[in-house]
Amino acid sequence: MQITNNGPCDSSGDRTTIATLLTENQLGRIEIVLVSPRNPLNIGAAARAMANFGFSHLSVVAPFEPHWREAQSAVGAESLLQNAKSAERLAEAVADCTLVVGTGTLEHRRAEQKAVALPELGGRLAGELHRGGRVALVFGSEKRGLTREDLSLCHLITVIPTDAAQPSMNLGQAVAVCLYELAVRGRFVAGIGTTADEKLMRATSGELDRLGGVIEEAMLEAGYSPEEMRAANRHDLRLMLRRLEMNAADVRRAMGLFRRMLHKMRS
Amino acid sequence: MQITNNGPCDSSGDRTTIATLLTENQLGRIEIVLVSPRNPLNIGAAARAMANFGFSHLSVVAPFEPHWREAQSAVGAESLLQNAKSAERLAEAVADCTLVVGTGTLEHRRAEQKAVALPELGGRLAGELHRGGRVALVFGSEKRGLTREDLSLCHLITVIPTDAAQPSMNLGQAVAVCLYELAVRGRFVAGIGTTADEKLMRATSGELDRLGGVIEEAMLEAGYSPEEMRAANRHDLRLMLRRLEMNAADVRRAMGLFRRMLHKMRS
Repeated sequence: MQITNNGPCDSSGDRTTIATLLTENQLGRIEIVLVSPRNPLNIGAAARAMANFGFSHLSVVAPFEPHWREAQSAVGAESLLQNAKSAERLAEAVADCTLVVGTGTLEHRRAEQKAVALPELGGRLAGELHRGGRVALVFGSEKRGLTREDLSLCHLITVIPTDAAQPSMNLGQAVAVCLYELAVRGRFVAGIGTTADEKLMRATSGELDRLGGVIEEAMLEAGYSPEEMRAANRHDLRLMLRRLEMNAADVRRAMGLFRRMLHKMRS
Repeated sequence: MQITNNGPCDSSGDRTTIATLLTENQLGRIEIVLVSPRNPLNIGAAARAMANFGFSHLSVVAPFEPHWREAQSAVGAESLLQNAKSAERLAEAVADCTLVVGTGTLEHRRAEQKAVALPELGGRLAGELHRGGRVALVFGSEKRGLTREDLSLCHLITVIPTDAAQPSMNLGQAVAVCLYELAVRGRFVAGIGTTADEKLMRATSGELDRLGGVIEEAMLEAGYSPEEMRAANRHDLRLMLRRLEMNAADVRRAMGLFRRMLHKMRS
């Protein structure tokens, strides 16, 4: 570690390397996703922390300011920022992920997902990465965090245990703390053995959304509920599909079944 | 945790409290010291992270910009910043501390102190806090980190294990990561049993400096070394006194002995 602000990356570097149980391949399957960030300096700071801890895949969803790729704060992470993906919606950004983890607080909303404290997150991700899954770690906007809609795409929420008197963290600092936990601290829990069942590949977020779409069509076709309930039903369905932790085969089977029922109802 | 940038502190707060083995009393005996910070936004960010993780004692040494107490980035930590101590020299700021820990890298200088990786720091501090000591965690300036002179006041150095390709961390993010480690992660190692010997109170940095001063006088009086070696001798002496981990009684005894010898040499 060097602690600097705007100093250039010193390529002679620290001799310390990341002592982590996450392999390079596993780190390469963790995406950092920023939703509606307002301040480009925070995007740059997130990129810098990613470079510090060996992460490389950044996605930026609906940023407030269009010129975020030039953020001066991305010291030593300029190319990471240039190569970041951008998306209009969170669902797009996490479509190929098998485990979507939202960051944030449990207040002001009914907890609709499982929550784990950050120190326990490494253990949860280890199994997923071990069986070849792709993980997204999602951060909301500086002012309001993740919306209820954003959270409905998350399998679980992770919470940094902060002081009740001042829980609100700066976005760049929160990203740094989470990545330190996963890259450095996670080594103490990563690589825990997984059961045969856990080795099955989980469905991607995009597959779950396609299944949700077919189920929704089926609900409409069947006259399951009135039009004004449609948004609420879609929300609950999303949550449920993620809570079930379906694997790819489960999703394929369910998809086949619902398509068949749809066809039957329509003919 | 809420993740925000400039949002006001929400006093309704997160229900999560810091699950830490450091008692409030122990957290109150850890000082965060920033040496020659250039950017007041980084001072504010450090203060914000301190509030997030339950720390309250900030010292700012020889800041570059005089109006740092108004830093906008200290969201929810305004009074912490107002109450921060300021000092002209690091030696003053840490005078009443019994364990001074520098943060930084080992490159570009011969390692003159013991170094521990950040994940192991909690265990090192636990004993010190347990026996009533006072700990300083010292961060250098954004551009250059701690100087050799600063480091000569440190008992040990802690290093955040960052990627060799981009070791250089932003100051505010480095503070956040260190405080997360101590307040949240440290709980897994804090409270480890200490031996009877370790229970003895360590000397404060100020006591070591006073002892060093008397020894230096004695060296001069004895014609121990030429004038041009004086600065180098002082530096080596400082390092040695800290490496010895002297307790308060050791220092009193050594002080008495050197004063006696000085008196003898002068009469």
